[in-house]
Amino acid sequence: MKAEIISVGTELLLGSTVNTDATDVARLLSEFGISVYWHTVVGDNPSRVREAVLRAKERSDMIITTGGLGPTCDDLTKESVAAAFSLKMVLNVEEEQRLRQRFEVRGKHMDENNLQQAWLPEGAVVLKNDWGTAPACYFNAEDTLVIMLPGPPHELRAILEHRVRPLLAEISGQVLVSHNIKFAGIGESEMEFLLRDYMNSLTNPSLAPYAKEDECYVRVTAMANSVEEAETMMKPVINKVMDTLPDYVYGIDHSCLAERVVELLIENNKTLAVAESLTGGDISKRLTDIAGASKALKGSLVVYTNEAKMKLLGVNSTTLEKHTAVSEEVAREMAENVREILGTDIGLSATGLAGPDSDGLHEVGTVFLGISTKDETIVLNGNCFFRDRATIRKRSSQYALDMVRRHLCGLKIETGDVL
Amino acid sequence: MKAEIISVGTELLLGSTVNTDATDVARLLSEFGISVYWHTVVGDNPSRVREAVLRAKERSDMIITTGGLGPTCDDLTKESVAAAFSLKMVLNVEEEQRLRQRFEVRGKHMDENNLQQAWLPEGAVVLKNDWGTAPACYFNAEDTLVIMLPGPPHELRAILEHRVRPLLAEISGQVLVSHNIKFAGIGESEMEFLLRDYMNSLTNPSLAPYAKEDECYVRVTAMANSVEEAETMMKPVINKVMDTLPDYVYGIDHSCLAERVVELLIENNKTLAVAESLTGGDISKRLTDIAGASKALKGSLVVYTNEAKMKLLGVNSTTLEKHTAVSEEVAREMAENVREILGTDIGLSATGLAGPDSDGLHEVGTVFLGISTKDETIVLNGNCFFRDRATIRKRSSQYALDMVRRHLCGLKIETGDVL
Repeated sequence: MKAEIISVGTELLLGSTVNTDATDVARLLSEFGISVYWHTVVGDNPSRVREAVLRAKERSDMIITTGGLGPTCDDLTKESVAAAFSLKMVLNVEEEQRLRQRFEVRGKHMDENNLQQAWLPEGAVVLKNDWGTAPACYFNAEDTLVIMLPGPPHELRAILEHRVRPLLAEISGQVLVSHNIKFAGIGESEMEFLLRDYMNSLTNPSLAPYAKEDECYVRVTAMANSVEEAETMMKPVINKVMDTLPDYVYGIDHSCLAERVVELLIENNKTLAVAESLTGGDISKRLTDIAGASKALKGSLVVYTNEAKMKLLGVNSTTLEKHTAVSEEVAREMAENVREILGTDIGLSATGLAGPDSDGLHEVGTVFLGISTKDETIVLNGNCFFRDRATIRKRSSQYALDMVRRHLCGLKIETGDVL
Repeated sequence: MKAEIISVGTELLLGSTVNTDATDVARLLSEFGISVYWHTVVGDNPSRVREAVLRAKERSDMIITTGGLGPTCDDLTKESVAAAFSLKMVLNVEEEQRLRQRFEVRGKHMDENNLQQAWLPEGAVVLKNDWGTAPACYFNAEDTLVIMLPGPPHELRAILEHRVRPLLAEISGQVLVSHNIKFAGIGESEMEFLLRDYMNSLTNPSLAPYAKEDECYVRVTAMANSVEEAETMMKPVINKVMDTLPDYVYGIDHSCLAERVVELLIENNKTLAVAESLTGGDISKRLTDIAGASKALKGSLVVYTNEAKMKLLGVNSTTLEKHTAVSEEVAREMAENVREILGTDIGLSATGLAGPDSDGLHEVGTVFLGISTKDETIVLNGNCFFRDRATIRKRSSQYALDMVRRHLCGLKIETGDVL
């Protein structure tokens, strides 16, 4: 099956909006093994939309449009697509009612041009939009399946997941199930290198690498007759990935490493306190992004100056003078003292030099991360040279969190240049 | 002039990469007032690239391609474009030398297929790529200007700025200069509403609204014969925007509000301490994102639990019992105490309920932000209802920073539901 994506919106042509819609649609189609040879972007212009559709139906079996379904005079995708297939437009009574009710519930007056959204090409089936006003829809004509989706990315994503995915599954007679295997403490290129041959050897289930912000992960996807069958097919793949990179898999389908760390702390009934110099609050921010973090994180001290390190954290002035703030010794005192001050099971610390300017003593990217428990304190010299300030800080935060994970999972905490 | 963008790359069709290249190109063209009616994405396939180019040259005066200039066998944009214009491919000797030198300097062996990058359509002019290996280039043929740019976004952006912008300026005989006027304390839609008529009335200089993360801004752009002339043209526009939204303009061309706050603190020789509950470290993280923040931010206390509020910050247990942590009274004590503990000029605090679950006493989104100096303490009840956890936290951090700006600029600090 060959598909083509047509995105409609002048804002895309002007460069005011990035076309993430096309990416999201393309990814879903590729999961189903549907080939896509063309994406086209046109403005809110009926004749160009029609021209794009006429061309697409000559060379593809499926057309997916995004954008231009709303209530304004710019929204003319449905009319233009209908024209390309010589279909009449008809008012969908159920959608009219849904729209009227929606406005009524919110106590708002419905302008009659809102009703435009309820007009669909003859024979089109509604894909109910529970995330916005404009209904999505699909129809079959001239041996082509046409699916029309709204432009706002959060509506598009929800409809893809909850309406289009089941539709494609129905058409293919198969279900598609995915899991994300998430890594920490390993970079994307190393992870890809170690898994490449295995990834290339698979077709169904398939295995694909992704990177997002400072994490990398692989997505395993199986197409099968049932969810159970898909899960059974994926199990050996997940096991193989975990066997290949045992210490680096921090979780499956977790949103981020901080979520896993909070989960582990709560499961193990442990509490954490953080002393941040280098990372300036970022470790705490990541942990408190997770709802329920207050069960695990008692508090943090952001000690961005030597004065604060001494005053708030009781770091020894001699240690600071002798070794400077960018040192293993200060990282050690910070981790130990914050644990004691807040009376927690674990103390975590980060100090270092993020730059851009050097202090004349250390290279930019010199990083010390400490973890302290009642039994021992480990300090990692995890340098991150030749990187910019933001990257040095981000990677340090991420690795500090990973030290907590490793500690709670009984894994070795690696030292050396690991960032 | 009508332009068309053709992006080449199978990874775009598979949805593994978002097409930010097309957005970046489109934005530059629109700054020059060049109309774009079509973007097309095709895979690494010679016949489809040629087909796209043949169609584009019929309907446009300018074609910009992105991607497919590299050294692998997938990189075939130049050959396919040349074929569409019946041009021969010739080896560019200077580029050959540049490539060989590049490998020599790095002590690496150059595979002969790397040389493929130095072959260009006959008559093409090189746009030197100082950010990667593959040269960009342009040529004029059949009344069409064709510009070919590399795909990696950081290379593309640099070449757009340093090579294509001057080229378009030369073609148009004009320079293009922009400034970003940045706002705080006002939402995108309100800002747009207040400036819409004025924006629509302008052509050169032009004024366009943008939003990025939790900030909104307008970009003023002038096309003129010289930089000086452009600056002179923009001055009244900048003044008009500042007059329309006087208290909300925090800076011009600043990267973010935190940068302006750090700058103001240093200019005024003032120091800051922060006590964060709700925002969990985010305010401190934003401030320390800015190099040199240690001159202004002495330290912060992340007091995510009541215990930490009492232990680290000396918040009164009676206040916590009587008013709960989500209260004006606790925000006040937090701001005052953190200022005293760290001996700073200004103390800043944030407490509230980010959800997703309510505590049974307060609505999710209840926020109290405090600012304390030796003269007075102001607490803002800046509610942010019906929003998700991440948005509540982000907006609270941003507004807390804005309170510091307003204080240092002698502006009124607004209270009420402002988030």
